[in-house]
Formats: sequence, C-alpha cells, structure tokens
Amino acid sequence: MRIALDAMGGDHAPDVVVDGALAAVAENHDLKVVLVGDKAKIEPRLEKGDAETLKRLEIFHCTQVIGMDETPVEALRRKPDNSISRSWQLLAERKVDAIVSAGNTGAMVAGGFRLRRFLKNVRRPGIAAVMPTLKGSSVVLDVGANVSPKPEHLFQYGVMGSIFARHILQKPAPTIGLMNVGSEEKKGNELAKETHALFNASSLRSQFQGNIEGRDIHQGKCDVIVTDGFVGNVVLKVCEGVFDFVMKQVHKEVLGQLQSERELAQNVLQRLVQKYDYTSFGGAPLLGIDGICIICHGSSNDRAIKNALAVAARYAEAGLNDMIVKELESAPTGKTSDDDE
Amino acid sequence: MRIALDAMGGDHAPDVVVDGALAAVAENHDLKVVLVGDKAKIEPRLEKGDAETLKRLEIFHCTQVIGMDETPVEALRRKPDNSISRSWQLLAERKVDAIVSAGNTGAMVAGGFRLRRFLKNVRRPGIAAVMPTLKGSSVVLDVGANVSPKPEHLFQYGVMGSIFARHILQKPAPTIGLMNVGSEEKKGNELAKETHALFNASSLRSQFQGNIEGRDIHQGKCDVIVTDGFVGNVVLKVCEGVFDFVMKQVHKEVLGQLQSERELAQNVLQRLVQKYDYTSFGGAPLLGIDGICIICHGSSNDRAIKNALAVAARYAEAGLNDMIVKELESAPTGKTSDDDE
Repeated sequence: MRIALDAMGGDHAPDVVVDGALAAVAENHDLKVVLVGDKAKIEPRLEKGDAETLKRLEIFHCTQVIGMDETPVEALRRKPDNSISRSWQLLAERKVDAIVSAGNTGAMVAGGFRLRRFLKNVRRPGIAAVMPTLKGSSVVLDVGANVSPKPEHLFQYGVMGSIFARHILQKPAPTIGLMNVGSEEKKGNELAKETHALFNASSLRSQFQGNIEGRDIHQGKCDVIVTDGFVGNVVLKVCEGVFDFVMKQVHKEVLGQLQSERELAQNVLQRLVQKYDYTSFGGAPLLGIDGICIICHGSSNDRAIKNALAVAARYAEAGLNDMIVKELESAPTGKTSDDDE
Repeated sequence: MRIALDAMGGDHAPDVVVDGALAAVAENHDLKVVLVGDKAKIEPRLEKGDAETLKRLEIFHCTQVIGMDETPVEALRRKPDNSISRSWQLLAERKVDAIVSAGNTGAMVAGGFRLRRFLKNVRRPGIAAVMPTLKGSSVVLDVGANVSPKPEHLFQYGVMGSIFARHILQKPAPTIGLMNVGSEEKKGNELAKETHALFNASSLRSQFQGNIEGRDIHQGKCDVIVTDGFVGNVVLKVCEGVFDFVMKQVHKEVLGQLQSERELAQNVLQRLVQKYDYTSFGGAPLLGIDGICIICHGSSNDRAIKNALAVAARYAEAGLNDMIVKELESAPTGKTSDDDE
C-alpha cells in the first residue's frame, strides 16, 4: 500500500504532517508514504524517524503550495507545481493507491475533478463525513465537493454511502435518509423533491426512509444521510461550532460550581472533547474517485494525519471501489445521459 | 395590544396553549388574546383563569385543525375553517395586531403568503431565529419560509435582520454575514455568489462581512446571518440535535463519574438545558408581514407560548415594521421588477 501525502497541506504543515506519516509508517509495516512537497522543508523533520521507518518514506519534491484561502481553480492554474496537483498526478499514474491531504479542500476536489478519474458510472464524486450519533455513527454525503448537484448525483451518493455504511461503519442493512426541511414527501426545494421521487422509484426503495430533518442526524435516525454539498458542508461545520459552544458552556458552568470533584469533572470533559474532536478524526473520503482520496480537516494534528493514513489503507483493503462500480451498474438512476457535463 | 393565538397549534394543544395565554394575560394588563379554535375544547381549560384575566381572553370559534404532518397547501384548501387561516384572517381584517401559532409551520407560512399581506417593497417574508452565541446572540434568517429564494430575497433578509438585530438584540451596529461553504468571495452555489455580489454593491456594504461558515454562527462572528430557508431550517434543527446529543453525552459521562458533587452537577446541567431549550424560546417572527406573526416550535410548552405572546407585544412596541418599510425604500436591491411572482 502506497499513499501520497500532501506534506504542505493544512494549518500546521509540514511539521505535523511529517510527524503523522512517521507514526503511521512505524505502526503499519505494509505502508509506504510518499511525502509530496518542498524537500528542504520536509527533510529536517524526518530526522526524528528511525532507519527502519525512513525506508518506507520518500519525498516527491515540488516547489509550490496552495494556501488554505486561495481560490481553488485559479490557484491550480497559477501554480502547476503545487503539492495537491502533484499528489493527484501520482494517483492518476497509478504510482500510489491513495492520496491524503489536509490542505485546501476546494483545491483537492477541483484537482480531482480536473483529472476526471471517476469510477465507472460515477457522475460526481462526493465527500463522505462520519458523524457520531446516539446509536453509533452515520455517514453524511456530500459535505462539500458538489455544491450544485442534480438529483441523480444525490441518488449516487445514496448508493456509495450505503456501501460505505455497510463495510466501514459495519451496518449490515443501512437505511438512507434525504436531508430536508420536513418529513412529508412534498417538502423542500426542487432538488429535494426530485431526489425523493428518484429514490422511491429505484432499487434502493426499501432502504430509503424518506426525508429526515436536521435534528434527526445525531439521533441516528438513518445510517446514510444524503444531501447536496452546500447543505452538507454547512451542517458539518455547524456541528463543529455547536459542539464547541456547548462544551465551553458546560466547562464554564459545571467547573465553576464544583469544588472537591472539579478536577475529576474536568478530566471527564476533556476526554469527551477528545472523543469528538473533529481535528483528530481520520479525514473524509472523496467517494467515487478511481483510487482513494482522503480529505482531512485543515487544522489536523499529527494524530489526525496518522489516522487518515490508516483510514486510507482500510478503505483500500475493504475494496469499496469495486463494490461501487458493481452497484452502480445494477442500480440505474433512470437517467444515463448527462449533456451538460 | 390584541393577539390572535392559534389554540389548536402544536403537539400539546389546546391545553398548554390556553395555559400560556392565561399566564401572559395575567402578567401583561395591556394584552388581549383571541383564542382561535374549537370552543368546546378551549373552554374547559379556561376555568383555571380568574375573572380579571378572563375579561381579556376571548374565543374565536372554528371547527378545523391542520395537523403537524399535513401538507400545508393541500390542508389549507381542504380545511377552510382551520385555526391557522382564521388567525391570518383576523390579522388581515386588522382585528388583531399579531398572530401566534405553534402549529404546522408550513401552513402558517403558506397561509400568510396566500393573503400576500406583505410590507411595502418586501418581496418574500422570512423567518428569523435567534441563536445563542459566545458573544450573546445572533439572528439567522430565513429558517424555513422560503426554500428557493432569489438573491434579492436574501438581500432583503439582510435589511430586515439588521433592523431586528439593532432593535431587538440591542446591537447598535449589526454586522451581516452570508452563510456559505468558505470565506472566499467566489465560494458556493450560484445563489450564494450572486447574493454576495448584491450585498457588496449595496448600501449595506459597510455592514456586510462577506461569507461565513457553519462553525462561525455560535462564535458570534456576525450579528445577522443570511441564508436560504432550506439551509436555515436544516441549520436550526441541526443545532437542536447537536445540543441534545452533547448534553446527553455530558450527562452520562460526567454524572456517571461524580459521587459527592453529582447532584450539584446535575442541577447545573439542568439549568443549562433549560437556558438553551428551544421549546421554551419565544418563537420566531415571520419578518416582512404587514402585522406581526410569531411561529413557535411544535413542541412548545406553556412557558414558550407565554414568551411568544410577550415577544409579539415587544415587536409591536419596537415598531420594526415601519423601520423595515423605510429602510427598504432607501436600500434598493438593484432589481425592482419581479415577473415570476
């Protein structure tokens, strides 16, 4: 298993990225990592690694970096030798099995869309994010790759999300819900209404639970939540914001009142924060790509990078892509032509 | 001040609604409430009130109720004598200054849109929801009235939200943010891009902070957050869901570990839950209506109904509507014709 890791991506690159790679490779002896980025900046940090680990790390030198706030398409054009494009190139040339980046999400997606190395029959890849729920976890997609999708794209997110839930989240019979503003069938905007009809007329009908509302996500009402990339991205970040807000209030109020068991409570809260800390999650896969692409949170720490590399290896082993291709062949969406793409 | 209250609206109607009305009228001696609904179901509950209070409560009898899960437009047509339509009618005939309902939100909005009693120059009313933040509170609109808006509608939400923030949230110089998937100007779907350009070319330019992301809401980054009704509704309900999820985790983990101060911690947590309990908030105004319309959470309790009646009275006193009309006259959106409406 060979993974290209964007060494220049994220708020704390390249140091935490290199640290994460060293940790991942030390733990998984079948893993090789290609650090894509500025050699002069990566090499000093590698001194921390032992000889055995360093054998499975190499550098693919490139000179440019896309900043976190740069406009993706423009930046990709202006900086041909950037670490994101070089990572995609390694994937396209099959020199690696997977790519991982905590860099500019828009540039990662645009880089992949440019190459159009989509799996057979996939119309648009989508980013899948795992969310904690009262019943374990669910997957929400798309959370930002495709902000103006068509109903058929959302349908395919249902197919891909369902495979993901079955094989990664271990849900033997995953249910699918469509993010909407109410549970009734006729609710929502045109996209939601058309997508609802598409699911109901498809082979996924038995898995499809209809519309679900924002408050149902964390209740674990459905295993797969399908939504457009605009709504999904906002939802993902709202969750992060509310979590942070509530934990700060709890911290202040609870710790402000307790005396003898204050330290104990503080430790419990800290563990909770770590448990749901978005920066140490293993990143979100861009599903539908021919290869594996994991997009990490910009503020990822070394643990997050290490987890993302482990997650990429796990996806490759699970063989999700073969299943996606097979499933899409037998689950037609009713439309096969796609004039405007 | 006379308010029509949909006595049949909400999960716990009519009992908690009548209780809320009794409490509100007992507290505010200038308030008169018209209970709109089935007389036979309302009257028995009124026995709890004293003679002085009952003088300022009357019943407007009607025979039908729109259920929480009914399709709004269909239900309004099929049930002409429903409590929501009758409430709107009282407002349209200027027999009341405000209407309040915890019933089917879609039917409330559709009922108002049908009458088209919009304030002068208002293109589409929007529901404004107040959210707690680390800096106090912000207002998000629209949260569900208009799921397929145009850029000009969102611009007007900025105008109305800004007046709301100034006079209700006491923010002397409110800032406005556009809900989007990233901070860069060119981010998002077509609606977001066009709306961004509209704000930047408008008289609100100095207040407009550009795009904000989901995680910025609870940080209090902007006082007014403008978004379409689909995204806003999902955001509102996601906040509710995450809050519930986090508090449940904290409850379980923290109380599970503590011993001597367990009861104290439990009380603190309970107060926090009450503080941010969406069901006891005073409801959300549908801004842009000629009159005052407050939409409450379906699971509102008597306290929520009482608060909503108080909020309606406060909005009337603040004279928000006159300010909205004046501001929209001097803040043209660049487009005045609206062929398709």
